[in-house]
Amino acid sequence: MCKSLGVNVAVIGLGLIGGSLVRALAARGHRVIGYDQGADVREEARALAKAVTAPRVADPSARPVGGSAFAEGWAVAGDVAEAVAEAEIAVLAVPLPALPAVLSELTGFRGLITDVTSVKGPVRDLMGDGRFVGGHPMAGKETSGFLASDPSLFDGCAWVLALEPGRTALGDWLTLAALFTDLGARVVPATAAEHDAAVAAVSHVPHLLAAALTSTATASPLAAALGAGSFRDGTRVAATRPELIAAMCGGNAAAVAPALDAVLAALAELRLALDDADPVAALASQLAPAVAARRAWPPVPGAPEVLPAEVDALLDLGRHGGWVSAVAADRHSLTALRPVTDRNAL
Amino acid sequence: MCKSLGVNVAVIGLGLIGGSLVRALAARGHRVIGYDQGADVREEARALAKAVTAPRVADPSARPVGGSAFAEGWAVAGDVAEAVAEAEIAVLAVPLPALPAVLSELTGFRGLITDVTSVKGPVRDLMGDGRFVGGHPMAGKETSGFLASDPSLFDGCAWVLALEPGRTALGDWLTLAALFTDLGARVVPATAAEHDAAVAAVSHVPHLLAAALTSTATASPLAAALGAGSFRDGTRVAATRPELIAAMCGGNAAAVAPALDAVLAALAELRLALDDADPVAALASQLAPAVAARRAWPPVPGAPEVLPAEVDALLDLGRHGGWVSAVAADRHSLTALRPVTDRNAL
Repeated sequence: MCKSLGVNVAVIGLGLIGGSLVRALAARGHRVIGYDQGADVREEARALAKAVTAPRVADPSARPVGGSAFAEGWAVAGDVAEAVAEAEIAVLAVPLPALPAVLSELTGFRGLITDVTSVKGPVRDLMGDGRFVGGHPMAGKETSGFLASDPSLFDGCAWVLALEPGRTALGDWLTLAALFTDLGARVVPATAAEHDAAVAAVSHVPHLLAAALTSTATASPLAAALGAGSFRDGTRVAATRPELIAAMCGGNAAAVAPALDAVLAALAELRLALDDADPVAALASQLAPAVAARRAWPPVPGAPEVLPAEVDALLDLGRHGGWVSAVAADRHSLTALRPVTDRNAL
Repeated sequence: MCKSLGVNVAVIGLGLIGGSLVRALAARGHRVIGYDQGADVREEARALAKAVTAPRVADPSARPVGGSAFAEGWAVAGDVAEAVAEAEIAVLAVPLPALPAVLSELTGFRGLITDVTSVKGPVRDLMGDGRFVGGHPMAGKETSGFLASDPSLFDGCAWVLALEPGRTALGDWLTLAALFTDLGARVVPATAAEHDAAVAAVSHVPHLLAAALTSTATASPLAAALGAGSFRDGTRVAATRPELIAAMCGGNAAAVAPALDAVLAALAELRLALDDADPVAALASQLAPAVAARRAWPPVPGAPEVLPAEVDALLDLGRHGGWVSAVAADRHSLTALRPVTDRNAL
């Protein structure tokens, strides 16, 4: 499948991620049809499609895929069945709790399904044996909803595509990797378990630390009055709606628990250092590696390399912090990047 | 002491804080003389004083205090003794480890001494029975040194002035409160112990959390590659020089230890919620108060109130998250602000 031929894609759920995806895929010439359970959201999406279409009619050469309903924008279906009727790929851009209901409407769908939720193990278990590749674009914004959508949202964003040895069809994985790298995403191969452990450590636990820091520091109005940059930054995500933090962390509890245990162990060591006869010296030696690691973040990629399109090579790439930036037209190889300095070199 | 008469102030140490203070006080018409142990820093300070002076000669009416050495800027002394020779107030703007050496040069000084370090209990114990009021302007910048100094650095900044019942002379405290509120600072009254506990909770512990989060999350290159906003914000201060974090936290270890224990207890509760049969619900109820507290921060002050210049009233103000914005000319009252919503109303 070559991007210049275009792909028929259905996007179910037109919030920030789904809406942005509809717009980004349409801009790349794919035939895109969206659906959202909210009638008002569907109207917003239809209205924007018309607005986008109008000024571009004069330049049809920019659109490799033609078709009356999609000529310059995207279509919006009235229900899930209509959305996926001609789709080769269905992207389920709904929250985790809404997935079972959408799946129950897709029993007859024979195409490839992917999702965008922040937990991959539970979704994999939910999907059964259909053609499924779990996905997670790490594209957050403080805003939400279709009106906040942005066709450039995925440019440079890490997009995990779950790859389970012996289970995921490599061809399906490559189809999605080609589609999303073409939007500028850094496609990261990982098993569902590896993904869930990684986001627990780097995204879910920080929300719990922010909440714990907020509740303890603001218990003293004097402390709250003295809060400055370190408190503001360290607690920023604690202003997220509590049900969202709870759904994210609780939905990934099996991975968040050991990740939080690791932080608690690191804090216990720092706590011991405070009781040392020379706490300044004890802390300095313990803190040095963390400071070096933070200064080395975000990782800087080395030169692009050619990787064979093989499951083991892809998973090895992901484990070393690397990502796929392009898929070759013949699907036999990929362009990959990996950090110059991985953990072993620190 | 009325600000329009000007005060003779010596500032020892011309880094970011000391340099900014020299410039801010001079701009308000005080007679300021600075000193730094670095000859190059003294030269920088002298050069800037000349540059500031030149264009203002035409408007002497803006300068209530005259005197050849100070006419339009500030003076720079060649040693500590010269700096304090005519000073009524000496501000020691040097780091904690440098304080004893400076104090040994001030044995004959009979004026009022204050400091700007981030820990107040150890400094109080160091000062003995001289005229001393500990201070801590919460004005951080990522830069340092005289060349980074900024005369507007203290505008809106919280400046704790330690007030020890039965020990601090209220008149001395009011002298400094008048001087610093006149620079735009929010002067916060607190005992040294209250200050140290508050900054441990709101400033020092966040540095330890950031370090622990960094070291655990970056142990996985995959996790590091997936790090986004919550990791970036939650670990930003972990890039601080490790010896600075260690000096700050280790120098206040007696207060940081219980503050870290409080966060560990809050995290232990969240850890238990992850093991709950319904972790999403358990987390949601635990997280709600923290989210409400974060959204209520920073505190919004109510209408200005007139406060009697009494130790108990001042300490009560500080404990409720309030601050002094002005000192009346007769020194019998102050203008105070306190948050509309203090902890009891949450």
